Amino acid sequence: MKYSIGLDFGTLSGRAVLAETETGREVSVFSMDYPHAVMDRQLPDGTPLGIDWALQHPQDWLDVLSAIVPGVLREAGVSPSDVAGVGVDFTTCTWMPCLADGTPLCFLSGLEHEPNAWPKLWKHHAAQDKADRVTRLAQERGEEFLTRYGGKVSSEWALPKTWQVLDESPELYERADVFVEAGDWLVWQMTGCLSRNACMAGHKALWHKGNGYPSREFLRSLDPRLENFAEEKLRGDVVPVGQKAGGISEKGAALTGLLPGTPVAVSTADAHVLFCATGVTEPGRMVAIIGTSSVYLLLGNEEKNVPGMCGVVEDGIIPGFFGFEEGQCCCGDHFSWFVQNCIPGKYEREAEAAGISVFKLLQQKASGLRPGESGLIALDWWNGNRSVLVDADLTGMILGLSLRTTPEEIYRALLEATAYGARVITESFRSAGLNISELVVSGGITLKDPMMMQIYADVLRMPVRVLASKQGPALGAAVFGAAVAGSARGGYDTLAEASRAMCSPTAAVYEPDAGSADVYDRLYAEYLQLHDYFGRGGNDVMKRLKTIRRLG
Amino acid sequence: MKYSIGLDFGTLSGRAVLAETETGREVSVFSMDYPHAVMDRQLPDGTPLGIDWALQHPQDWLDVLSAIVPGVLREAGVSPSDVAGVGVDFTTCTWMPCLADGTPLCFLSGLEHEPNAWPKLWKHHAAQDKADRVTRLAQERGEEFLTRYGGKVSSEWALPKTWQVLDESPELYERADVFVEAGDWLVWQMTGCLSRNACMAGHKALWHKGNGYPSREFLRSLDPRLENFAEEKLRGDVVPVGQKAGGISEKGAALTGLLPGTPVAVSTADAHVLFCATGVTEPGRMVAIIGTSSVYLLLGNEEKNVPGMCGVVEDGIIPGFFGFEEGQCCCGDHFSWFVQNCIPGKYEREAEAAGISVFKLLQQKASGLRPGESGLIALDWWNGNRSVLVDADLTGMILGLSLRTTPEEIYRALLEATAYGARVITESFRSAGLNISELVVSGGITLKDPMMMQIYADVLRMPVRVLASKQGPALGAAVFGAAVAGSARGGYDTLAEASRAMCSPTAAVYEPDAGSADVYDRLYAEYLQLHDYFGRGGNDVMKRLKTIRRLG
Repeated sequence: MKYSIGLDFGTLSGRAVLAETETGREVSVFSMDYPHAVMDRQLPDGTPLGIDWALQHPQDWLDVLSAIVPGVLREAGVSPSDVAGVGVDFTTCTWMPCLADGTPLCFLSGLEHEPNAWPKLWKHHAAQDKADRVTRLAQERGEEFLTRYGGKVSSEWALPKTWQVLDESPELYERADVFVEAGDWLVWQMTGCLSRNACMAGHKALWHKGNGYPSREFLRSLDPRLENFAEEKLRGDVVPVGQKAGGISEKGAALTGLLPGTPVAVSTADAHVLFCATGVTEPGRMVAIIGTSSVYLLLGNEEKNVPGMCGVVEDGIIPGFFGFEEGQCCCGDHFSWFVQNCIPGKYEREAEAAGISVFKLLQQKASGLRPGESGLIALDWWNGNRSVLVDADLTGMILGLSLRTTPEEIYRALLEATAYGARVITESFRSAGLNISELVVSGGITLKDPMMMQIYADVLRMPVRVLASKQGPALGAAVFGAAVAGSARGGYDTLAEASRAMCSPTAAVYEPDAGSADVYDRLYAEYLQLHDYFGRGGNDVMKRLKTIRRLG
Repeated sequence: MKYSIGLDFGTLSGRAVLAETETGREVSVFSMDYPHAVMDRQLPDGTPLGIDWALQHPQDWLDVLSAIVPGVLREAGVSPSDVAGVGVDFTTCTWMPCLADGTPLCFLSGLEHEPNAWPKLWKHHAAQDKADRVTRLAQERGEEFLTRYGGKVSSEWALPKTWQVLDESPELYERADVFVEAGDWLVWQMTGCLSRNACMAGHKALWHKGNGYPSREFLRSLDPRLENFAEEKLRGDVVPVGQKAGGISEKGAALTGLLPGTPVAVSTADAHVLFCATGVTEPGRMVAIIGTSSVYLLLGNEEKNVPGMCGVVEDGIIPGFFGFEEGQCCCGDHFSWFVQNCIPGKYEREAEAAGISVFKLLQQKASGLRPGESGLIALDWWNGNRSVLVDADLTGMILGLSLRTTPEEIYRALLEATAYGARVITESFRSAGLNISELVVSGGITLKDPMMMQIYADVLRMPVRVLASKQGPALGAAVFGAAVAGSARGGYDTLAEASRAMCSPTAAVYEPDAGSADVYDRLYAEYLQLHDYFGRGGNDVMKRLKTIRRLG
């Protein structure tokens, strides 16, 4: 029996899963929190950080790596010689300046107190002004790349983060030989090879398979000092996901306990990696990771401009296909907000008396409602809108409230609103000519809330398939490990083969109910009219309220 | 020292206040609940009632009368000989069929099991179909009276309630010599004289000082059997409020313990009566009773068509003036709904630990917010809209919600929404050429929530004066009693003089804050745009959601 190890590096912890390459069965799991978690107030030496900063400690990743790989093998009683390959997914864009040998600048004596020497975590938002200037210049110059990202460059991405280092600490920018994604850096530590994965480069560093990075002219116009950024600081080939980065080096063996030469896949994004845990290996079925926020992924045979998408990257999900991404800024976050802020004490006491969570009580009560019975409709924009409006300044709305309105009716209306938002996304893909016949979903909430999944099936008028695996990303990474192992080592020769063999079983399939779907068609038409009125300039009250709020 | 007795007959109880005629000082108060309260499920003999029925028992009113008048005198140690006069206010339209001598039909042997023989309480809503047909026919015929009532006849009014009796129990309609407001009936019992007060006749029975009741032609078109309704069943002159109905009769003396001949004023409505407790006796200042719902009253020198008003009646508030009424279906009801359905357990526990009510806690938290800080705006239509849209099918809305939104922000947004609704009302009066320089308010909430009153002053950009009296309606009725006593008996010769002398002291005056008012101007502009979009046909989503709800 051969095994693949999937390493999933999240925001607060890293976990390893050991999976049988033949079946994908998850044999053991081992995880560890990062000792420094997210540094958003101060550096380890006490140096204070500004507002919206969010950094991480590279030593944490190495320490976690050194714990979870031996740990997952030990738990399963499996020998390193039976590990066919390793795959890694990581948060992105988590972006760091390094020396040519891979040493993070923050490891250098004398630089440990320099905030800009440290890796900027994906949710570092202190480069918003830079992101706005990148967007504005790209619009002025009519840069083609902008259309691939819904017309807007995020402050979370590589270029604004790099520019912040340059602008605030030019000597650190000079000192850095490379800027690199933390996921690529970790693989570099394990293999000694620096390569960049197409998924992160495409989604976060504005890279395009045909055109490469943004042009020297564009970068010079942004800041003359950035002119040579791509040539000088982005060394390393961009490689399709599912390719081998290299074999475990001597240093990597010391870190992990794996045998030198064990194949390691190039890194990939923690959302996108899940695709390979679903067994979807061709266009036509959409994959959604539904959590606090949601990500929607789809394969296509050609590059298309889907209005409001978060990005399209060739070889970014499965090699040989274009990978499309859209997203909802807020999904489970809505429900958590609601439960924390809007549930009356009597419901809390009722849940306690019944020995169930408030969520469960709400589900029970809301399950008894017919579609449309509440008379409510909501816009799911508590955290802005990522797709298809791409507008962080939009806010949430509930309409139809009466003196008879109950908490469970509001709760259900929030669930339905996220389903309508998902339908807007599927319809935008269909309008661009991409077929979608099924939604494959993963994430804790998809296993916990059958009512919500039925609502999604009814609103979307297509089957919703829920994955059984609770370790979706780590299993997806293990699929990558098996794919780079190759059949000779007990793995597979292509990512698609590995995915089909190792993907998660299905926990449940929800089929649309025709009667409910008819009611939801009518409600969706109402949602869409409100969506367009408030989201496309019919009434910019949401933005004006934010302006008034800031002025006060 | 002379005294006036004010009798306030509400929905669940009656109360008497004894006030010094010279100063209005409230010397004693005495109240009693109606033994049968509201009969909305069955008659006293067990006969079941239909949906939306609401009846009352005339004997309850007599029993309460016989308890509270002696009671209030006893408490104060005042002799009946020192009572200058008596005033009465009553719920309206509480409508009953009687014999010519005033005997309610329900008192007749053999009729006690007939629901239509009993007084229909103001909130009896079982004649909605009749009201709709009255409205439709009036529209078709272009009846002028409709413009005085915002274009719609309510199911709570006299004509639909009478027609229900006729339609369902024609023999009872035949048997009735008169149909009368319960307030007028009570005064009839006390004085032996049947007169009808202009306030109720104008607001609830479609009566007009110049044109009288709806025409025979209109009534015949409605139902041939109604042709002679006004002549045959509405016997009794319509008298301006503030006039004397008569003196206490022997029967009245037996009921109340008052001396025969003690002057009694014609009845008036329980909302409008409050006007005379404010000391406002001329146009230019608006009076509002703010409670679960709110009523707005204003005097004018001429009849004007104010769009969406609830009614304009000559001599209906103060003789010699036109009395205008507008209303909000839902005010305190919003806040109660919110506290019952949307307050998290942690707030309940915090309030309990601090030994204060949840309302008080919310007020404390919301007081710390700047205008506009929440980023929220709401439409205050949880119970429809009475003025100026006159549309029961509108529903509530909240917009601007985010993951940072707190319960106190939503609470404050609901308060602000009712203030914006009040501004729509004041502006509709101003558009019709009526000046308003101050808002005079009464009602428990106005004494309990200084933040809300400051918001009203800021939103309305005018001073808000809060009355100190907690017995506003009863004090207003006492003013009527003093006015009909005349100066010779220690009262006054006009209602205006009585009102100025006896009105309640002021508890507080809230002056608008210029900075807050500027922010609220901007927010009100947003409210108005949403108000018109959802309320005037821009998007009838609220009505369509109600349709979908009913279909389900």
